Amino acid sequence: MQITIGREIGSGGREIGKKLSEKLGYAYFDNNLLTLAAKESGLCPEEFIKADESNEMLSRRSLSLPFSAYMSSETLLSPEKLFQIQSEVILNLAKKKSCVFIGRCADYVLRERQDCLSVFITASELDCIKRIAKRQKISLKQADEVRHKINKRRAAYYNFYTEKKWGDADSYDMSINSSLLGIDGTVDMIVELIEKVEHKQG
Amino acid sequence: MQITIGREIGSGGREIGKKLSEKLGYAYFDNNLLTLAAKESGLCPEEFIKADESNEMLSRRSLSLPFSAYMSSETLLSPEKLFQIQSEVILNLAKKKSCVFIGRCADYVLRERQDCLSVFITASELDCIKRIAKRQKISLKQADEVRHKINKRRAAYYNFYTEKKWGDADSYDMSINSSLLGIDGTVDMIVELIEKVEHKQG
Repeated sequence: MQITIGREIGSGGREIGKKLSEKLGYAYFDNNLLTLAAKESGLCPEEFIKADESNEMLSRRSLSLPFSAYMSSETLLSPEKLFQIQSEVILNLAKKKSCVFIGRCADYVLRERQDCLSVFITASELDCIKRIAKRQKISLKQADEVRHKINKRRAAYYNFYTEKKWGDADSYDMSINSSLLGIDGTVDMIVELIEKVEHKQG
Repeated sequence: MQITIGREIGSGGREIGKKLSEKLGYAYFDNNLLTLAAKESGLCPEEFIKADESNEMLSRRSLSLPFSAYMSSETLLSPEKLFQIQSEVILNLAKKKSCVFIGRCADYVLRERQDCLSVFITASELDCIKRIAKRQKISLKQADEVRHKINKRRAAYYNFYTEKKWGDADSYDMSINSSLLGIDGTVDMIVELIEKVEHKQG
């Protein structure tokens, strides 16, 4: 089984994914996926990070300005190329073992697989803001600004590369508000879903 | 506990809500809520139906045309007034007993209650189309048109009366794709959520 996790920033989605992978004995991939992709492609990891989903270049592209305007000499790898390499890595990993993937449009990349469950994690506005503030050591006001900015970027990235809409209930198998049951309770609900699906598929 | 169910047309949301209420021993309210509201307010049920969430007048209003343009002499009850009466009925019912509410922005109406869980039901496009075609005895092509039209109306209704966005994962505690586990399996997942929340709240 492959699990993909999309998430609002500050929702605890990454932690939920990590704990889920540990509970299930699945491999876990988020930023380390980038490094892996870099290694497999023979390119330098730093270049991957520059062209990451949250980078400024991509964010500007969501404003529909011509791509070439944002290609600078310091970035050798275009976001499209990075996305393609990442997608290949995700597909190859999924062939080898059960994984939990965080972000990277993995739900879309793995859409042809019958054994892929896509989950989206939300949380109350206040919980998201508090989590960001704590993690980044900034004020609640600043954290709220970060929240808006990063969610916008994630949406732009997802909407650009997939035929779906980021954060739409319709784009995922399940979405859940982590403020309701907390991190562990949310992990348990996802495990429940996986077990029910596995039981149904026999 | 109060359960509210939003749903895409053809997702099986209503059936899921009905089965859920039976399983939990909760009261169930969808269209019969309108009749009840009519009785309680002393108005004629037919007038409620005219001003229902799926009616033409409201749908046109979503195009931001002036409301007065759509008030005809045959409708005595404005959509706003209907919404207000329905909301009062929902609030009163929730005070008396555990309920499952289908549609009517019940999640928003009950937002101040701590014991309210909001669920949104989706399904694969094909499953929705097939379900509509079967129920309305129309072709798949016609069913797809109905699907677009009704989902648009539901979104317009919800977005008009609430501060949230219809179908956004962020607007609900949980959303689930009923194509994954079927009607009964989806009911079981919602029961699971309720039990976990009740256990957490002690």
